Amino acid sequence: MSDKMNKSPVALVTLLTDFGTADGYVGAMKGLLMQSIPDVRLIDISHEIKPFDYRQAAFALLNYAFYYPKDTIHIVVVDPGVGGERKGLVIKTSNYHFVGPDNGVFSFVYQKDTFQAYEIDLMKFGGEISATFHGRDVFVPAAIRILKKEKLANFCHPVNHVSSFYEPYSQTDDGKIVLKIIHIDHFGNLILNFNKSNWNDLGKPNKVKLQTSHSFLCEIKHSFSDVDQGELVLIWDSQGFLQVAQNEGNAASTLQLQVGDTLHLILF
Amino acid sequence: MSDKMNKSPVALVTLLTDFGTADGYVGAMKGLLMQSIPDVRLIDISHEIKPFDYRQAAFALLNYAFYYPKDTIHIVVVDPGVGGERKGLVIKTSNYHFVGPDNGVFSFVYQKDTFQAYEIDLMKFGGEISATFHGRDVFVPAAIRILKKEKLANFCHPVNHVSSFYEPYSQTDDGKIVLKIIHIDHFGNLILNFNKSNWNDLGKPNKVKLQTSHSFLCEIKHSFSDVDQGELVLIWDSQGFLQVAQNEGNAASTLQLQVGDTLHLILF
Amino acid sequence: MSDKMNKSPVALVTLLTDFGTADGYVGAMKGLLMQSIPDVRLIDISHEIKPFDYRQAAFALLNYAFYYPKDTIHIVVVDPGVGGERKGLVIKTSNYHFVGPDNGVFSFVYQKDTFQAYEIDLMKFGGEISATFHGRDVFVPAAIRILKKEKLANFCHPVNHVSSFYEPYSQTDDGKIVLKIIHIDHFGNLILNFNKSNWNDLGKPNKVKLQTSHSFLCEIKHSFSDVDQGELVLIWDSQGFLQVAQNEGNAASTLQLQVGDTLHLILF
Repeated sequence: MSDKMNKSPVALVTLLTDFGTADGYVGAMKGLLMQSIPDVRLIDISHEIKPFDYRQAAFALLNYAFYYPKDTIHIVVVDPGVGGERKGLVIKTSNYHFVGPDNGVFSFVYQKDTFQAYEIDLMKFGGEISATFHGRDVFVPAAIRILKKEKLANFCHPVNHVSSFYEPYSQTDDGKIVLKIIHIDHFGNLILNFNKSNWNDLGKPNKVKLQTSHSFLCEIKHSFSDVDQGELVLIWDSQGFLQVAQNEGNAASTLQLQVGDTLHLILF
Repeated sequence: MSDKMNKSPVALVTLLTDFGTADGYVGAMKGLLMQSIPDVRLIDISHEIKPFDYRQAAFALLNYAFYYPKDTIHIVVVDPGVGGERKGLVIKTSNYHFVGPDNGVFSFVYQKDTFQAYEIDLMKFGGEISATFHGRDVFVPAAIRILKKEKLANFCHPVNHVSSFYEPYSQTDDGKIVLKIIHIDHFGNLILNFNKSNWNDLGKPNKVKLQTSHSFLCEIKHSFSDVDQGELVLIWDSQGFLQVAQNEGNAASTLQLQVGDTLHLILF
Repeated sequence: MSDKMNKSPVALVTLLTDFGTADGYVGAMKGLLMQSIPDVRLIDISHEIKPFDYRQAAFALLNYAFYYPKDTIHIVVVDPGVGGERKGLVIKTSNYHFVGPDNGVFSFVYQKDTFQAYEIDLMKFGGEISATFHGRDVFVPAAIRILKKEKLANFCHPVNHVSSFYEPYSQTDDGKIVLKIIHIDHFGNLILNFNKSNWNDLGKPNKVKLQTSHSFLCEIKHSFSDVDQGELVLIWDSQGFLQVAQNEGNAASTLQLQVGDTLHLILF
């Protein structure tokens, strides 16, 4: 996408949280941003991440972050460890800044692009910092300082280690591919840690077999509608990950599977 | 509204989907729009349409679309048939473009205004089109081309037939009005396929009788609060459709009725 | 915050409702605003307030309203009495206008700042006013008239009495502090009607005891993570209210408590 990457003419900030909206916490973050940067453009991604589910947030982030104009700031606040010892981070990639806690929420970003990691120094933020709401008291103020072109060195220092839960697929001695469910989306699609690039590396096998409690799925199809309504199907998701889906149904409910569960793929 | 219709000074796009927000799919659509049209104004209508419920989306669309400035583009992606044979459409009305799948989601638009229908030619879109996410890969790119003033003929062709599920009310031989529930809203109000214009055509009968499992509703009242808390009431909804409501309650739950169910209205 | 209060360079409107989004009602309000004030900046706070729960809306409002630039208009529509006799209000504070029904939704605003209250005269609004949707037909049109610098006297008149449900904490004869749960947030935190200023007035007692059905909480801690995962903890919330929380858990579910329930705090 870099060849057609537009620089945003204005400050652009996206927001992803597990706050819900009904308490007004996200409203406070937006108000602070508007107050400090009156022409900022704010994009709500979601505030409906399951409480504390940084893995869901990490996968969502991969789905949208890299479509945004250069210099967009992506704020992610899914932060069960707020007020404790986890670090607050600014991650700088080729085109973006990511701001949020160091709990793995940026795991897929680290896979996708080169990056430099910085820990936010709480001491460099005047005023009282609450122990429960770093979204308002740390991460938004950090984003504001970046938008105002302040040097990161003024309120951050580089770090060499960041948390990641990314786990590639593995292979058994007899050649089975061991896959994990890394995400279940809104429609109940089961997304697996195996993408088109992995498939290319294995020689694009035409014949595969994935066993579920309901059926053998024997081919990677093109779309949901290649099978009858209610049938399960193995297809590529819109980011190029392999997924188990159900045409006009919810595969996760049907198969009673959860994030972290294992499935085996046999190649022919 | 046309006499005071303002033309939007900038590109204005509304978004209605059944994607939820937590997977970042909507975030991707917004990013692409911002990337291509940096000053675009994006309005989230909802991403909480029930999965695959194009009828709910169609009714919602009627509630908001015609309040927007001239030249607004309304994108609607509730698309159970994605990747299959259903057409992708651009619908041009007096003031707006509507972009989305041809599954009935524009049924009320066709009733409300004159329109021209165009099928989107997938072949005219470079790059890989996923089979699962035409919101990102077809409908947003089509909207971008419209916003860039490209001729529709470059990526669409006119069609003479579009899908609609609109069904007017009917009357039995003995004069009963047979009504269908076309929508149940967030508050559980039951909205019927009978509007003030239909009522005018019948001579504005003052006395009506609608039988439910709980009670006879014998008059079209002015507002919820014309009856006691918890009581059912027959009133006009904010678009001029007849509805059964419950003051500070949920009529759909109370009456155990669903979209598509039938009610009989007797006129006196 | 007033020393660094920026005036918004453009019209800025926030929206808080209990409408959900899926019916398009909020979409209609936004369309009307864009139609009349093409450069208006619209900020969604939430549309997920529990239906008719003006208390939840009142608390959310406190969490965000005062972070916004000067001259922001805060529209709040949680309005079980719509179409009845409750007044429609414009509340003018030092920096903002608040627009919505007179049912207590502004209770915390009245505590936070000086204000003047005005009742909206429905007769001063041309066109048909629905009995079910004053958000679209009264409150948004009122906001538009304010944004167009029309004098409030043209469509409002001052009132001396407004509804409030605010109830300060009380103390028993033997010195116990009687607290009420005024809000339960998205994470299940129980927020009490006792803030840091109340605590200062009582001499900042280091030792306190709050009894729940599960345990005695004997100290006001700094953060969630000062206790083990799953443990209850007494801390200050991000607005300075005392709250009972559970580290990575949901205190409201664990303790089976609801808004309005009473807890006793003993000081040492």
